[in-house]
Amino acid sequence: MDYKEALNRFRIKIEKVVAINYANSIMEWDAATGAPKKGAPMRGESLGFLTVLQHEILINKEAEEDLEILLQNIDKLTDIEAKMVKNSKKEFVKMSRIPKNELRDYHMLTNRAQHSWEEAREKDDFSIFSKDLKEIINYKRKFAKYIDAKEHPYNIFLDDYEEGMTVEKLNAFFSKLKERIVPLLKKIEESKTVINDDFLKKSYPIYLQKEAATELLEIMGFDLTRGMLKESTHPFTMGTNIDDVRLTSRYDENNMLSGTLSVAHEGGHALYEQNISRDLFNTSLATGTSLGIHESQSRIYENNIFKSKEFINFYLPFLVKRYPEQLKDITTENFYNAINRVEPSFIRVDADELTYSLHIMVRYEIELALIEERLEVEDLPEYWNNKMFEYLGITPPNNSMGVLQDVHWSHGLFGYFPTYALGSAYAAQFSHYMNEEKEPKKVLEWLNKNIHTYGSLLTPDEISLKSCGELLNPEYFCSYLEKKFTNLYNL
Amino acid sequence: MDYKEALNRFRIKIEKVVAINYANSIMEWDAATGAPKKGAPMRGESLGFLTVLQHEILINKEAEEDLEILLQNIDKLTDIEAKMVKNSKKEFVKMSRIPKNELRDYHMLTNRAQHSWEEAREKDDFSIFSKDLKEIINYKRKFAKYIDAKEHPYNIFLDDYEEGMTVEKLNAFFSKLKERIVPLLKKIEESKTVINDDFLKKSYPIYLQKEAATELLEIMGFDLTRGMLKESTHPFTMGTNIDDVRLTSRYDENNMLSGTLSVAHEGGHALYEQNISRDLFNTSLATGTSLGIHESQSRIYENNIFKSKEFINFYLPFLVKRYPEQLKDITTENFYNAINRVEPSFIRVDADELTYSLHIMVRYEIELALIEERLEVEDLPEYWNNKMFEYLGITPPNNSMGVLQDVHWSHGLFGYFPTYALGSAYAAQFSHYMNEEKEPKKVLEWLNKNIHTYGSLLTPDEISLKSCGELLNPEYFCSYLEKKFTNLYNL
Repeated sequence: MDYKEALNRFRIKIEKVVAINYANSIMEWDAATGAPKKGAPMRGESLGFLTVLQHEILINKEAEEDLEILLQNIDKLTDIEAKMVKNSKKEFVKMSRIPKNELRDYHMLTNRAQHSWEEAREKDDFSIFSKDLKEIINYKRKFAKYIDAKEHPYNIFLDDYEEGMTVEKLNAFFSKLKERIVPLLKKIEESKTVINDDFLKKSYPIYLQKEAATELLEIMGFDLTRGMLKESTHPFTMGTNIDDVRLTSRYDENNMLSGTLSVAHEGGHALYEQNISRDLFNTSLATGTSLGIHESQSRIYENNIFKSKEFINFYLPFLVKRYPEQLKDITTENFYNAINRVEPSFIRVDADELTYSLHIMVRYEIELALIEERLEVEDLPEYWNNKMFEYLGITPPNNSMGVLQDVHWSHGLFGYFPTYALGSAYAAQFSHYMNEEKEPKKVLEWLNKNIHTYGSLLTPDEISLKSCGELLNPEYFCSYLEKKFTNLYNL
Repeated sequence: MDYKEALNRFRIKIEKVVAINYANSIMEWDAATGAPKKGAPMRGESLGFLTVLQHEILINKEAEEDLEILLQNIDKLTDIEAKMVKNSKKEFVKMSRIPKNELRDYHMLTNRAQHSWEEAREKDDFSIFSKDLKEIINYKRKFAKYIDAKEHPYNIFLDDYEEGMTVEKLNAFFSKLKERIVPLLKKIEESKTVINDDFLKKSYPIYLQKEAATELLEIMGFDLTRGMLKESTHPFTMGTNIDDVRLTSRYDENNMLSGTLSVAHEGGHALYEQNISRDLFNTSLATGTSLGIHESQSRIYENNIFKSKEFINFYLPFLVKRYPEQLKDITTENFYNAINRVEPSFIRVDADELTYSLHIMVRYEIELALIEERLEVEDLPEYWNNKMFEYLGITPPNNSMGVLQDVHWSHGLFGYFPTYALGSAYAAQFSHYMNEEKEPKKVLEWLNKNIHTYGSLLTPDEISLKSCGELLNPEYFCSYLEKKFTNLYNL
């Protein structure tokens, strides 16, 4: 059969899926930014219907046959077409090998698990969640086996978030981090340097913080005519398409840094989605290539740029103009020191730049132990607390502030956490290769050219090789942290 | 064949259509309340895809056969099912009789006509729009003929907005209005009573107006946990479902009345959508039954209630508390007089309660003359201006403030305008039958019980008969206006 007919049908299917994705995104944005809560059931109906529809469009006999024809003619396709075909084939294999009824039962289970996790966290009682978690892990292992029984199940999970990543590579990655960051943190804790960040906790009126947030986005180079900033309980970024990229932040009157870093972080994600090549418009490739690379874009702005002396030197006057009273007599040095203060804490999302990846390491080691059946769910709280003490030197006072703090596992998101640490490491590596340039315009230019423009056309490895001439190398991250915090704490 | 199988398939189709409607509504809400304009193309793709999909679900051989089976078994269905089947059959006939390619061409034409109308209005040049308008009228006449060649084409249009309404009934309705309102307006213009409304044009800060808007909605009995109020250029109401009803207003610092009346008006629409019986949830009947009845709910709050002395007596203290300076020394009498001031003007949406329906009368007579081929499109501006002078005693200085002011005709909306006047007449009639009660709680109770709860289960005629014991009777509207304005202007 002529491959062109198959290609035509394939493209139409992709466009339908993109159209449905857009509708679903807007409904989710709406839900997160103010929609009446009581309207949730109808939204659930609509999202559910459209998700099933997407599945029906992609997973059927015709789609399967077309994919075969296109794979046989892959040389005749453009790069974009070929990449979409390969991705779709992979997705097809995954979706078609898991029995529909098991997938439905699993969705019901994770739906239920949201509630048991929430209740467990509220009541600080891990046992309320443990039964569902055990079942989730069983399903995840079973599904991985359906997809490829010969592969390490954790590699199957990783493939959903970070193409090319494996347990072997992650083990090497995290052992390097352990070797370098854990001793560094010990030294900092023993240091006598005291950093004062009290002025960050003064009263910063919310309406001023909102104005500052928009200004910061403009400084970063975000195009507000092709996107918008709103508020939500949990900050997030949503690239519905190149011309409509949305992000949210949250503001705390007595913690100016929190909202500001949120904007820098989400702004980094948003710049990625906004600067994907227009050639990819209306295709399935018009989004970030992996969670790790996406996170590198948020982390590079939040940490490597925002928390650098060069940037603070440039940006502090903007803040002083807005908050003359609160920032009276505060120097670049004061501000830089305060926002880089290290303090081990229990909650991942509040962690500083140095300890953040240790939180991730704890989670990675637990996930791997659970999936490899070296750890029982019942023993998880103790295991968690031991790891926290080993790496961060602190023990959570309860499970709500420990093993129960994150929503991810109740959603079945195993293999997701490591991408946060990969993002920080990629950020340090990219930052190194752009010659430590901290001028917003030049940073954006480099990221546009080397990362953003490709969307999902290149894999994380291809992007790293093309832009840095080497694969991900945690050495950059470790030596960046060592240099920065050795100076800061006079080690 | 067993009708139960057909019924099951029919219900699933309706639920799919409701789910798609929800998604489309949220996308339109998003577009109207802040979405980046540059994102419009992707939204267009998504809305277009979902609209085609809806058509595919409803208009096909299986759907047609199922409808036949269900119509043969109509006695075995519940009231709700039977009504949905009848509506769907009507819709099926309409949609299937118009050739697809003509419908597509017509959609392209109305799309183009948006632009030619906008340009014509901007440049005050009717000739830019007249060619498209002529084509639209030709299509409308042709489509009406496809649907039912024996029926007056205008009756076919009316059926889309107001089931049971006909040219014959409208002619009687408007001649009554002409006979009673035109002379009343003449008398008012000759009267020596002068009403001062200057205090309404003072500075009323927008943030206070917004707080007042929410308060007014609460007074009206709108449940803010099942809906929300935002801002948009053109105020509108959107009932996505009983538990999520949204409305917008706009605010002008120097015209406090405008935003307030917008909220009262849209709030009336919103109360209707919010109080439909829960039995109709997730069916195609969970919305207002007709445009006229819907408009009666907005008009009754905007005019019959808000602009009554009883309500102002109750509500003015709320406003005085919020605007002590601006409303200093203003009495109920002052406020009542000011908001009821009559002044013929060119723009329909700014018209006062009395002259509003005269604006509609002008449009109705023009539409009918165009459709009955008694009037050429070229002669429209002159015809418009003559009618305006005849009924309102004023002549528009240009076509932008005359025949080009409304968007409706460029969308092909013929037969739509009359429902605005029907709404005012129904509002007066309902107001009469609820014994002129102006206490918000009691008003809402009466409307809930007699109108809201039925959604689209009853026709306008059935609702009128059930709640008033008679059909629509413009006598109530005319005598209400006569009584009110005779008093106000000491005629």
